[in-house]
Amino acid sequence: MEVTSKYIVIKTSIDGKPQESDFEMKTQPFSLSLKPGSKDIIIKNLYLSIDPYQINRMKTVSASQKASEFSIAISPGEVIDAYGVGKVVASGNPEFQENDYVVGLISWGEYSTSQGSMLSKLDPMGFPLSYHVGILGLSGLTAYAGFFKVCKPKKGEKVFVSTASGSVGNLVGQYAKHFGCYVVGCAGSSNKVKLLKEKLGFDEVFNYKEETDLNSTLQRYFPDGIDIYFDNVGGKMLEAAISNMKSHGRVALCGVISEYTNAEKRATPDMINVIYKRITIQGFLAGDYMSLFPEFVTTTVDHLRTSKMNVLEDVSVGLEGLPSAFVGLFRGDNIGKRIVQVSQI
Amino acid sequence: MEVTSKYIVIKTSIDGKPQESDFEMKTQPFSLSLKPGSKDIIIKNLYLSIDPYQINRMKTVSASQKASEFSIAISPGEVIDAYGVGKVVASGNPEFQENDYVVGLISWGEYSTSQGSMLSKLDPMGFPLSYHVGILGLSGLTAYAGFFKVCKPKKGEKVFVSTASGSVGNLVGQYAKHFGCYVVGCAGSSNKVKLLKEKLGFDEVFNYKEETDLNSTLQRYFPDGIDIYFDNVGGKMLEAAISNMKSHGRVALCGVISEYTNAEKRATPDMINVIYKRITIQGFLAGDYMSLFPEFVTTTVDHLRTSKMNVLEDVSVGLEGLPSAFVGLFRGDNIGKRIVQVSQI
Repeated sequence: MEVTSKYIVIKTSIDGKPQESDFEMKTQPFSLSLKPGSKDIIIKNLYLSIDPYQINRMKTVSASQKASEFSIAISPGEVIDAYGVGKVVASGNPEFQENDYVVGLISWGEYSTSQGSMLSKLDPMGFPLSYHVGILGLSGLTAYAGFFKVCKPKKGEKVFVSTASGSVGNLVGQYAKHFGCYVVGCAGSSNKVKLLKEKLGFDEVFNYKEETDLNSTLQRYFPDGIDIYFDNVGGKMLEAAISNMKSHGRVALCGVISEYTNAEKRATPDMINVIYKRITIQGFLAGDYMSLFPEFVTTTVDHLRTSKMNVLEDVSVGLEGLPSAFVGLFRGDNIGKRIVQVSQI
Repeated sequence: MEVTSKYIVIKTSIDGKPQESDFEMKTQPFSLSLKPGSKDIIIKNLYLSIDPYQINRMKTVSASQKASEFSIAISPGEVIDAYGVGKVVASGNPEFQENDYVVGLISWGEYSTSQGSMLSKLDPMGFPLSYHVGILGLSGLTAYAGFFKVCKPKKGEKVFVSTASGSVGNLVGQYAKHFGCYVVGCAGSSNKVKLLKEKLGFDEVFNYKEETDLNSTLQRYFPDGIDIYFDNVGGKMLEAAISNMKSHGRVALCGVISEYTNAEKRATPDMINVIYKRITIQGFLAGDYMSLFPEFVTTTVDHLRTSKMNVLEDVSVGLEGLPSAFVGLFRGDNIGKRIVQVSQI
């Protein structure tokens, strides 16, 4: 059986802030049955993770960067791979059966084809499928591994999280609170501030857009200094955080969204501070911590079942809204995990 | 017995590059005998360590910075404490006896008074006393701890050292070579380049003053990337090194001399690189690794006795030349450990 499959592409490379007009929807004939002997898996895409880091793959890059192991460039006009949840339509791979739910690398489209190496069978464990894109998926693992393995927290330590209402930041704050840390977040609207304090239990949250001197702001919230800074934003906030770190403080670099679309905004941290305070700044990717997945899922499922953690999701419906959902990330439109539901089950 | 003791002070705080005219020599009457009941130690200063970091203590600072545990500000007109080797003239402290050699915190002057907490008895072990200021002293420990504990090297890894002819850099390069790494250094003159390659065994050394694009330079010396960057300089070199790191690369921040006297020169490293390559940037101070001192000394003494390590010293004689020796550090005048010999034994 052949269908017409819609998918989203970039029209050209994107080097500044993305606009909806940078994207277009294309269609292609797509066969839902396998050729004899094929080992492919054909997937109907259900939920797609919408992540800021994808912009780094959309930039104009040199040949050497294209070959980089770290971030495979997305070419204009081509299918864009992305993390998500889908359902198997047909499979020539004995590990996957028709109607299995799967999670892993699918694509910004209605259907995906996979060889299975970046895909896992998914047991929803009674939770909504969308949870497996966010809190029980890579966003969750990023927060869990980044906080527990990169930041190496001790109970009672003072933690600062930027983009605290984002997909990862809100989870870091919740893990840190349950672990016994003092947690301050920053976000970009009064709604987000209220939500993080009242619903997620952050000790303090401030709206960075209302602050004129981030250095003083952080001094006010951390009069004795910051032990752990979980950075999702980079730029001036990273500089201010480094100026306010305690001795032996740790900075986990998860993302630097303010720098993704404008290299002019790069942080110029005071490295004299980094030396005298013996600060560690560590970049990390969740992919290095896949062995932690079972522990992370067990802990997080337990927190969800005992209502110790809250889920912040921002789900829009329909592939055609994907460009808008993606572009909005860079305006801070999302509250929590941004997800596009491509299709009903 | 009372003598006239000469000492060096700063006339005012120093915020840019230091000039000799920023310093002056003062004298004070100084008693070489102790008051009855005193537990002090009176020391005749012999060799003084001349270190760039002292400039950070000479800057105009706020009250809160003055109270910092990291770097106690030096006030104009007052005695400046510094690492060095001396000889005990009189002691009310039972741990120290007259004529003992000591190493630790003494001062930029002819004599020092100590309570003993920042002082150790010194066994020269048959080596020149000056070695205990440099290669067998804090510079050595800084190189040893920084390389082995902060950089966590593996045999065969590719190491880049900036200010490679400096007091710490030259030792890092030598430790790294003996450990089995590939070592590239940079320095600021053809003499230094020659010395590092021919005498100290660096694999490659370049004169950074002859390079116009540090990024390309490092690409040339490290076509497959840098595993370890031991940074003594900060600024543009740090940026270029980060751009050329391998995955899971480690940057040990030992000093950022290019930024000490000019905050405009601060590095703006590409944090996207730090994330995708999972780079760790770690500031450190040798003071945190004092427990490593016995191991460091044993290893280094063995290397010296078997002529596996070379000593690069730059010793000038006379306290009156100290300001010039210090100021010259910021022009890169020194080759190896800069030391002022205050007095004959």
